[in-house]
Amino acid sequence: MLRRFKGESLSSEEESDSYFPPTYIVIEFSSKIKPETAQWLVDKISKERKKGGGDLIVRSQPLNVGKNLTVHVTCGSQQLLELAEELEIRKRDRHGVLREFTMHELDDFINPSDKAELLSSSEKQTIVRHELENIRALNHEICILSYPEYPLYEGQSILSACLHYGIIKQIYPLHDEAFIRKLGSKWYSAFLSPQPYEDIRIYFGESITLYFQFLGFYTRSLIVPMLLGFLQMLLPSSFLPFFCILNIICASMFLEFWRRKCSELAYIWGTITMTSFDEPRANFRGHMGIDAVTGKLLPQAPRFQTHMKMYCVSLPLVVLCMIGAFFVMLIYFWVEDHVKQIPDVPNWFINVPGVVYAILVYVMNLVYRKFATFLTEWENHRTQSQFDRHRVTKLVLFEFVNNFMSLFYVAFIIQDIALLRYQLATLLIVLQAINNIQEAFIPLILRRFFLSESKTSKTKIEKSGKTRKANIELVGIKEIEPTDSRLDEAVSEGRLDVYEDPYDDYLELFVQFGYVFLFSAVYPMAAFWAFANNCLEIRTDAFKLCRIYQRPMARKVKDIGAWQRSFQAICALSVMTNCALLSTSPSLRAHAPDMSSTKWYLMFVLLEHLLLAARQILHYAIPDKPEWVRVALAKGNYKAKQALKQQRASKSRRKNLSNP
Amino acid sequence: MLRRFKGESLSSEEESDSYFPPTYIVIEFSSKIKPETAQWLVDKISKERKKGGGDLIVRSQPLNVGKNLTVHVTCGSQQLLELAEELEIRKRDRHGVLREFTMHELDDFINPSDKAELLSSSEKQTIVRHELENIRALNHEICILSYPEYPLYEGQSILSACLHYGIIKQIYPLHDEAFIRKLGSKWYSAFLSPQPYEDIRIYFGESITLYFQFLGFYTRSLIVPMLLGFLQMLLPSSFLPFFCILNIICASMFLEFWRRKCSELAYIWGTITMTSFDEPRANFRGHMGIDAVTGKLLPQAPRFQTHMKMYCVSLPLVVLCMIGAFFVMLIYFWVEDHVKQIPDVPNWFINVPGVVYAILVYVMNLVYRKFATFLTEWENHRTQSQFDRHRVTKLVLFEFVNNFMSLFYVAFIIQDIALLRYQLATLLIVLQAINNIQEAFIPLILRRFFLSESKTSKTKIEKSGKTRKANIELVGIKEIEPTDSRLDEAVSEGRLDVYEDPYDDYLELFVQFGYVFLFSAVYPMAAFWAFANNCLEIRTDAFKLCRIYQRPMARKVKDIGAWQRSFQAICALSVMTNCALLSTSPSLRAHAPDMSSTKWYLMFVLLEHLLLAARQILHYAIPDKPEWVRVALAKGNYKAKQALKQQRASKSRRKNLSNP
Repeated sequence: MLRRFKGESLSSEEESDSYFPPTYIVIEFSSKIKPETAQWLVDKISKERKKGGGDLIVRSQPLNVGKNLTVHVTCGSQQLLELAEELEIRKRDRHGVLREFTMHELDDFINPSDKAELLSSSEKQTIVRHELENIRALNHEICILSYPEYPLYEGQSILSACLHYGIIKQIYPLHDEAFIRKLGSKWYSAFLSPQPYEDIRIYFGESITLYFQFLGFYTRSLIVPMLLGFLQMLLPSSFLPFFCILNIICASMFLEFWRRKCSELAYIWGTITMTSFDEPRANFRGHMGIDAVTGKLLPQAPRFQTHMKMYCVSLPLVVLCMIGAFFVMLIYFWVEDHVKQIPDVPNWFINVPGVVYAILVYVMNLVYRKFATFLTEWENHRTQSQFDRHRVTKLVLFEFVNNFMSLFYVAFIIQDIALLRYQLATLLIVLQAINNIQEAFIPLILRRFFLSESKTSKTKIEKSGKTRKANIELVGIKEIEPTDSRLDEAVSEGRLDVYEDPYDDYLELFVQFGYVFLFSAVYPMAAFWAFANNCLEIRTDAFKLCRIYQRPMARKVKDIGAWQRSFQAICALSVMTNCALLSTSPSLRAHAPDMSSTKWYLMFVLLEHLLLAARQILHYAIPDKPEWVRVALAKGNYKAKQALKQQRASKSRRKNLSNP
Repeated sequence: MLRRFKGESLSSEEESDSYFPPTYIVIEFSSKIKPETAQWLVDKISKERKKGGGDLIVRSQPLNVGKNLTVHVTCGSQQLLELAEELEIRKRDRHGVLREFTMHELDDFINPSDKAELLSSSEKQTIVRHELENIRALNHEICILSYPEYPLYEGQSILSACLHYGIIKQIYPLHDEAFIRKLGSKWYSAFLSPQPYEDIRIYFGESITLYFQFLGFYTRSLIVPMLLGFLQMLLPSSFLPFFCILNIICASMFLEFWRRKCSELAYIWGTITMTSFDEPRANFRGHMGIDAVTGKLLPQAPRFQTHMKMYCVSLPLVVLCMIGAFFVMLIYFWVEDHVKQIPDVPNWFINVPGVVYAILVYVMNLVYRKFATFLTEWENHRTQSQFDRHRVTKLVLFEFVNNFMSLFYVAFIIQDIALLRYQLATLLIVLQAINNIQEAFIPLILRRFFLSESKTSKTKIEKSGKTRKANIELVGIKEIEPTDSRLDEAVSEGRLDVYEDPYDDYLELFVQFGYVFLFSAVYPMAAFWAFANNCLEIRTDAFKLCRIYQRPMARKVKDIGAWQRSFQAICALSVMTNCALLSTSPSLRAHAPDMSSTKWYLMFVLLEHLLLAARQILHYAIPDKPEWVRVALAKGNYKAKQALKQQRASKSRRKNLSNP
């Protein structure tokens, strides 16, 4: 599979035996791992591919560094290019055409004037991780070595299984300090400058870049509602319906244009052709079989099983959880009401139900998040995008109940608009500020004051003696030089929190979007506060990623997945809530005192239907993809079709020649 | 471009000079055409392609046959195959794989056990018509020869222009009597047997087959609402809401599953990959230029011009027309009201406004149809599918006002449910029956009694002497043998009406769908009458196509175009109308006499929103394409991508070899 090409020798540096290329992935084993299992795993990683290994270079950390046995995984630059070809990584060639990189055409891809490396740092990381995840159980390996209680099935990703069973503590890539410093100066330190999206993509990969693109796009889109909000406060209340209509149209347009923007990005990044038939994710379970699309040997599982599980088990359970959360909220309101009516109740006691409810919501969220992840894993989705989409859908439905139901209750059951306005202001100003502080500043301060001091002392201790519990020595694996700076980096970054995916960040925006648009009729300042917060959010999120968390694994995505529909659903709901708020507004009602109440409500039902229809028409009239993307895709398809035709023609010509 | 292959000789029959292959297309010139223009056109058709001709075989009818100068156009079977390759006609090869036919692999496509010809009759017709339409004006041809008043621009389709200017009276294919007889026995004569879709497709092409597929699918889908309707009549009125909900869910499911069915058919027919970047239609205007997708020389016109015309001119005009039609309706109701209030008015006089209105609607429809076609032509859509979609959209909007507005008026303004029910019954039973009779039986009877007699006598006269006005003799074009039966066929079929496209047939179903579902709350028998009518409709439409009309030109389509959305819009509307009808139903209101009127209406608004949401969820949950179609398409894409990669690799290998 891996070929060396004539005349292309390894660079002199790479040939020397002591050279160890940059660490792409660090694997920290559990403290309780059995020595033979660690040896077995390390051998798997470094063994040849045809023997079921990963063919990667492994070095272990010296015994006296770190708490647990830790190895660094890397890969030679020539081999990286060969793997890039295999994984069909798309690069822009010298003519600016984005296409799959091949070794034959290396010269076509390397721009002599541009000294930058062909593969970006996140791509190299992706390649190595793919190779690690692709070490799969052979048919005689029915369990993890020496752990008969941990079964494996044929084709299962061994490292994913070990992570799952806790034999491997963590797998993480290392930060690149020089790059981070350069990136940070253009990103989180430069408050007013545009975000350096291309650098973000090179370092963090597509998934995280798309989040920041979305955040930037959304923040810019908030400018119009913000200006409308200022204007609304100056004009009398009879203009209110117009502002509501304009706000809703703004929100709808934002979502439609984001879809277009997103498809442009996906095209440029080469991810637009991702489908559910792509290579399955590491945790996909199924028997090994011939793939219907590619003809390769891949794990196969029938899609209808997933559908059955989704609709017959997950859906009812999720709905039950939502109803449960809803009832918890009702009970909270009921208890609060009763507490208020107790005579001579102390002031602090009135807040007790609220605090208890807040804690309860926090705990329910934690439990539900695990439950949703478990359900989605059990549904066994084939690709990472499908998995993410269905997980996010489950989580969003639950979060919707927790975040918005109490506001709906205040707005439409109690109908206390002043309280609603007060709550919105609190949520948008105070909670967002707290969130920002909690996300970025507190971890930073904590780290500065506690960890950094203890770290230096700890590392010294670890380096000095036998602090490690299990002194496992790996046979055939070289140790890294004790002077290598990567040792310190691996140890300190291993202690950082893991940034799983941008779910929490999207959720924050989703909740904010709801606050801004669902009740824009009663709180026009919402857009301003959201805008102000987001300007800060961009920089704190950037800082968080660069400095607070472990470097996240790069992931390819073509869109924001379930979030697009979630935002659209909020937008459709906001049509209804705003019309309902308008219809119950006493100041508006005063303008038409003679109208019968039925007619009055029907008028707003009509307005609502017109707005919903307008949204639908906008959706149809604005194409998903800009013209140039469609042309470019069609051109690619046409060329591929022609190539297939030519290939078939030359094949049959050859056949005709051999059988004259 | 056209090659002859070694060892493949023409069949002995084709080699003989007197042999004339089956006529695929007949061209009847105008009676006033100048002889040199006719000669110029005929030369164009038979000239070599590299000289801008069509390279087709032309024979003229003898001078004494037919009213006008008429030529038959055909093509040798070898050349047809070569053209089929060029047009990328997709056929199923011996392994059952649908792919573009190529001459190199002729053996792979011809099944030795199956004696049927490779190209179907509609495909041959399509190829010849494509070649005719593709005779385009060269850059020195600024007008039609000898007609300086009829300008041409470079790249315009000459025959389409001549049809437009009236120089050519008509272009039509000939029926195949033997095939029609065989088809008819399986189709319109066999009332209860399933339709022979594959034969229909072979003979009439994809567009018409899709109509009959849709008609069949829709009719089968009516069975459930029909049974629900019977049940509804047996149960008390308090069950009404449930039936409404079930009916709406039935209609939504029908439309979702039709989309799936449609994509299956499109895949099997090989039309699923049709896009707006396909070859432009004959009437597409633009300067000749390099196509961005294929790199071929094709007429080019910027898409934004079309969009500007659509949104800035057509849309306001269409809305104006709709408002106009609406006001005409209002005036009719107003006049009728006044007439009824005149004392001692004679009975017949009360019906006058209705009759006048009916005539007015008929005339308005005629005028508007021409207007819409003109507008759509002026918008200059690139492909036939786009043209059809935008034309149908315009027509449907207008027809909606004419067909449904008066019912809305009766249902919601007058609120006379008895009258509504009466009108629905009349429309569904009487009007549909009249339609069927008018469509099929009257033309048949007319033809049997008048035309067939006159035809034989006329043909005789025409054959006997100099009835033709312009005795144009074409140089270099052979005449057809006077004994050839095709002469009679061409003359008699030239007199038949033209079946333009299935627009009218779809419209009938659309209107019926509206009658059945928009008001299902008040007239549950609607589905039964629609079902009964459609069972008949299938056979009368089949008969009409086979026996009443000229053979229609075959057209490739991948879906039912604008009709899908039109039906969906009716379905969404029916949620609203049914909820509104339920909310105004006195018998339902009697069940909750204590509820306040506002609460009562809000309950139905809530029901309506739930139903709309359910529709949306169904839309997301049911994928457009069945799993197997998606797998098959992904497989095709994957293969093509691999071929492109290989092609590039071998190219660069060759380059490396030549520049070592």
